[in-house]
Amino acid sequence: MNIVILAAGMGKRMQSALPKVLHPLAGKPLLSHVIDTARQLSPSRLCVIYGHGGEQVPQTLQAADLCFARQEPQLGTGHAVMQAVPQLDFSVPTLILYGDVPLTTAASLRRLLAIADNDKLGILTVDLADPTGYGRIVREDGKIRAIVEQKDANEAQRAIHEVNTGIMVAPTGLLKNWLANLSNNNAQGEYYLTDIVAATVRDGVEVVSAQPDHVWETHGVNSKVQLAELERTHQRNIAHALLEQGVTLADPARIDVRGALTCGRDVSIDVGCIFEGDVVLADGVRVDAYCVIRDTRIGAQTHIRPYSHFEQAVVGPECIIGPYARLRPGTVLAEDVHIGNFVEVKNSEIAAHSKANHLTYVGDSTVGSRVNLGAGTITCNYDGVNKSRTVIEDDVFVGSATQLVAPIRVGKGATLGAGTTLTKDAPADKLTVARAKQVTVENWKRPVKKK
Amino acid sequence: MNIVILAAGMGKRMQSALPKVLHPLAGKPLLSHVIDTARQLSPSRLCVIYGHGGEQVPQTLQAADLCFARQEPQLGTGHAVMQAVPQLDFSVPTLILYGDVPLTTAASLRRLLAIADNDKLGILTVDLADPTGYGRIVREDGKIRAIVEQKDANEAQRAIHEVNTGIMVAPTGLLKNWLANLSNNNAQGEYYLTDIVAATVRDGVEVVSAQPDHVWETHGVNSKVQLAELERTHQRNIAHALLEQGVTLADPARIDVRGALTCGRDVSIDVGCIFEGDVVLADGVRVDAYCVIRDTRIGAQTHIRPYSHFEQAVVGPECIIGPYARLRPGTVLAEDVHIGNFVEVKNSEIAAHSKANHLTYVGDSTVGSRVNLGAGTITCNYDGVNKSRTVIEDDVFVGSATQLVAPIRVGKGATLGAGTTLTKDAPADKLTVARAKQVTVENWKRPVKKK
Amino acid sequence: MNIVILAAGMGKRMQSALPKVLHPLAGKPLLSHVIDTARQLSPSRLCVIYGHGGEQVPQTLQAADLCFARQEPQLGTGHAVMQAVPQLDFSVPTLILYGDVPLTTAASLRRLLAIADNDKLGILTVDLADPTGYGRIVREDGKIRAIVEQKDANEAQRAIHEVNTGIMVAPTGLLKNWLANLSNNNAQGEYYLTDIVAATVRDGVEVVSAQPDHVWETHGVNSKVQLAELERTHQRNIAHALLEQGVTLADPARIDVRGALTCGRDVSIDVGCIFEGDVVLADGVRVDAYCVIRDTRIGAQTHIRPYSHFEQAVVGPECIIGPYARLRPGTVLAEDVHIGNFVEVKNSEIAAHSKANHLTYVGDSTVGSRVNLGAGTITCNYDGVNKSRTVIEDDVFVGSATQLVAPIRVGKGATLGAGTTLTKDAPADKLTVARAKQVTVENWKRPVKKK
Repeated sequence: MNIVILAAGMGKRMQSALPKVLHPLAGKPLLSHVIDTARQLSPSRLCVIYGHGGEQVPQTLQAADLCFARQEPQLGTGHAVMQAVPQLDFSVPTLILYGDVPLTTAASLRRLLAIADNDKLGILTVDLADPTGYGRIVREDGKIRAIVEQKDANEAQRAIHEVNTGIMVAPTGLLKNWLANLSNNNAQGEYYLTDIVAATVRDGVEVVSAQPDHVWETHGVNSKVQLAELERTHQRNIAHALLEQGVTLADPARIDVRGALTCGRDVSIDVGCIFEGDVVLADGVRVDAYCVIRDTRIGAQTHIRPYSHFEQAVVGPECIIGPYARLRPGTVLAEDVHIGNFVEVKNSEIAAHSKANHLTYVGDSTVGSRVNLGAGTITCNYDGVNKSRTVIEDDVFVGSATQLVAPIRVGKGATLGAGTTLTKDAPADKLTVARAKQVTVENWKRPVKKK
Repeated sequence: MNIVILAAGMGKRMQSALPKVLHPLAGKPLLSHVIDTARQLSPSRLCVIYGHGGEQVPQTLQAADLCFARQEPQLGTGHAVMQAVPQLDFSVPTLILYGDVPLTTAASLRRLLAIADNDKLGILTVDLADPTGYGRIVREDGKIRAIVEQKDANEAQRAIHEVNTGIMVAPTGLLKNWLANLSNNNAQGEYYLTDIVAATVRDGVEVVSAQPDHVWETHGVNSKVQLAELERTHQRNIAHALLEQGVTLADPARIDVRGALTCGRDVSIDVGCIFEGDVVLADGVRVDAYCVIRDTRIGAQTHIRPYSHFEQAVVGPECIIGPYARLRPGTVLAEDVHIGNFVEVKNSEIAAHSKANHLTYVGDSTVGSRVNLGAGTITCNYDGVNKSRTVIEDDVFVGSATQLVAPIRVGKGATLGAGTTLTKDAPADKLTVARAKQVTVENWKRPVKKK
Repeated sequence: MNIVILAAGMGKRMQSALPKVLHPLAGKPLLSHVIDTARQLSPSRLCVIYGHGGEQVPQTLQAADLCFARQEPQLGTGHAVMQAVPQLDFSVPTLILYGDVPLTTAASLRRLLAIADNDKLGILTVDLADPTGYGRIVREDGKIRAIVEQKDANEAQRAIHEVNTGIMVAPTGLLKNWLANLSNNNAQGEYYLTDIVAATVRDGVEVVSAQPDHVWETHGVNSKVQLAELERTHQRNIAHALLEQGVTLADPARIDVRGALTCGRDVSIDVGCIFEGDVVLADGVRVDAYCVIRDTRIGAQTHIRPYSHFEQAVVGPECIIGPYARLRPGTVLAEDVHIGNFVEVKNSEIAAHSKANHLTYVGDSTVGSRVNLGAGTITCNYDGVNKSRTVIEDDVFVGSATQLVAPIRVGKGATLGAGTTLTKDAPADKLTVARAKQVTVENWKRPVKKK
């Protein structure tokens, strides 16, 4: 089929410089959710109608399988679909989706497509406890005869709870004709897509319907209030899916997943964690409270302690990380590595069984196995213009408060004395130290309080 | 009008040494919420009746526009209002509020004042689904004839859902008379303000009513359970108002605002943030998860990363701060300043384009533009009795793990070598370093495990 | 009485390698909750039936007052109870509980035991709005005549809302006979405990019932979804109990208590805190947001600032700790101690009025009174194999960025210069320093960008 996604609206109530469909839900633009769902249906043409906000929408979302059509001026939903007509394949039907209705599932759409087949108009409808304001689905003998808007509805019609969601599928050739005959003879002077239902009935084409599994699949975003509500719905769904697959969540209402979180068996996640991008947690990983983890893989049985912050890192199995540990892009930790409190690692590999437990900065470094980096170790990787690498070979013991001025290499089994500023390579297996003589000053007086 | 706020109660169920009305809601005493609402009505007299907890209430809340009257002993609500009578202006009516009912809005009170005018008794009433325990509003032909307490109500009266909130406005002269004639002939031996309604009806004075916009406006606090419930109601209201004005909130149930949060356009706030005092976020500011920000201004497009903690700071535009950054009082950052992880800044100005990205303490300092403070930089601002200033001029590069022993000045364009303890001023444009010779010790043996 | 706890089930829907009853709720295995409740009833025999997961259950939970009986193979609940029969005291009745129903209260069970006395079968029943799937309690003239399972129930029986919880108490001798006569002639080929009700009625033994105070007392855990739901129920209950006893909670939905939290008067806890194990907060303690506190005692009026992480620590009164402070096991702080940001303390005592406010690591140390540890102080307590102690006597001033290489002692009133690596003891009352000469390099050129 063809899929047309309407994404030209302004979203004035969003009160934002950003076009409405680019506002993120779970870290991804609303429109991207719709595009990703559309892709699951393998459309032959996937066309996005944009308008408000100029070229931001195509610039942000361009992809090989998408075509974009600009609606300018914006004269209603029917007019929007018209912009797509030149792009459509007339041999298959056309499904119309909305860039601000992000949570419709492919399963619901497939049901609609199946019932509409190639020759019927299919409308996704939903039963609302309070249908006020929505277009009512008027049926005769069970068959859809009309969609009547709130303002045009009589009392009997207003009592109907089945409403139009706007999502529909139509035979493409007929759709083109129906659109061509739309009138803008209404208060707003717009061409309404809904009006094609009247034409369909007139032409004797059957109108069928399907319903989504959940009402929230049809909720649109017109304000930050609605955006926040849908964000919560989406996060609740994700949390429920994680629980169903066996992940332990301390509180399903306090986890945020903005991307793809893949979990092994016996993974446990404490309150307040945030996962962004692609995160993989292997079997038995335990993530403590308030961790923020982005685009990171974590190996089996690793324990992440509270307030840890990872970005583009790879963490091996059986590691203990945190609390207050920050792993920045390019961090690669092997198995059984310990990274402790107030430690930052960036663009560095640390081999198995090594430790950096306290107040340390490891940047642009290669650290061997069984290395101990004492408290306050700092790799001086930046001279103001260039970044240089530090290499610390296996079995090195770096004493506390030691600085390694890169480029530099510490040989296998070397020991660096506490407080050393290492400016030249340290040989293997020996103690290297740079340390001033300790002196006690006689007759020295403590400072006194100045007035 | 006059406003009298009853705030003498003990609040035994609060189980606290603090008088009930001083317990904070959204960081401000319950009574202060009521006083602030009262001030919006521009009363000619604003009188607080206090009692339990001695002088704590007037001491905590004294202000030029407030008068305080002590109720001692505490003989009921009618008796409490009597204490205010000598302070009242008899030419205008008197509105009676409660120090433990914090969320009544000025809009609801204005409606009550308007309908009561200068000559009627006005009662704020509310319809409760379950009115059990409350005084019922008994009407005849729509007119209020009595307030009947739960214990005195017959079956028909108990079926009434409209109840008394206690908030009322009365002509002051009449009020004085009615109060003077109250009886304490009841089980508690107290003078009840509610009893003036009977006197009003007897005297042929009209009793009118208004209803608040929300039931929670009339909720009082008698226990920590109720305090927590009202705190949540209040925070939900604040979050909703922020969303309505276009702020993006990742979760409206996980933001706490205790004071005034002013947001520009396209501000985005992630989960778990806390704002206290006066906080201003300019256009495009992004605040990541779990930040705690108090009395701080943040410039446009600045990005605050997770777990940042600010207090009395000013942050310029286009800065990147955090994660784990602490800005303490007196921090002033210009534009495009970067403050990174495990960095504390206190009582210091940092000019444009400067960076302190790792494990650094900047205290009592003036830092120029384009300065780079390496990892582990520490300003030694305290000698045990005095604090001294550090001045770092423009374009300085401070190597890692460098200490600056204040008072001290680093000249423009100077470079400080890593690991330097700087005790004297460093001249401009040159490298200054204090560093011991690096030595490798031959035949040194690593320590062995002690038994 | 005897208590038998059925804990042999697999819990396939938990999708875990861990036996279901060992999954933690509020930090404690489900089964431990049941055992702890059972202990409140002072049973003469307390017998756990285990099976799935091999010896993990007895190994994890063994205790002097518990006996374990293995059910292998697992042929139903009646078969499970049979395994316990040899262990039971026939002179008292037997109460049957479930290792995956963690929140039943002792009060509810006492009511059941009281009504069943020594000679009746007592069943804990509960009224469910939707009883679908549960065994209905069929009564005649108010007396229980049968329990009819969903699949066997006729329309009238399906309309019954009172259902069986499975918890029951029976005279032990009769129970033994009833169990011996159970049949496994059913679809699963299992022996069902519920079938003894029919035998009871047949034998003319009276069947009585009690109901729990709350429906959640009877909820079992079969999936991670249900585990998360019960965790929230339990946490809500704990939060409510804290509020009732006068603790101020900023948000009752955002506190997690996994163990015993004991609070004095006027304790205040901000959002997002987690308490594990035994935590005691004395009068007036204030805990700010996002603290994680385990097995720790905190003295009166102490203020814990945000993101603090304590484990097995003792904190004195009137201390100020955090933000971002980590107290590790063995930390003992006296009164009025200040521990600031990015500071870690481990296995150390710090005496009154001492401070470590910035970027410091204090490990294996004894610190006296009125000591000031400057920013960046590091105790070098580990040489790669041994840990050694640092002793800092009263009134010492440690300059910033100083390392103390243990074992070492700093005498009373000594001052250490900033940037010192102290390798030998420092005498009392004098300034000790180890510092290289500060040199400015003429004609030095800054590095240039490499291609």
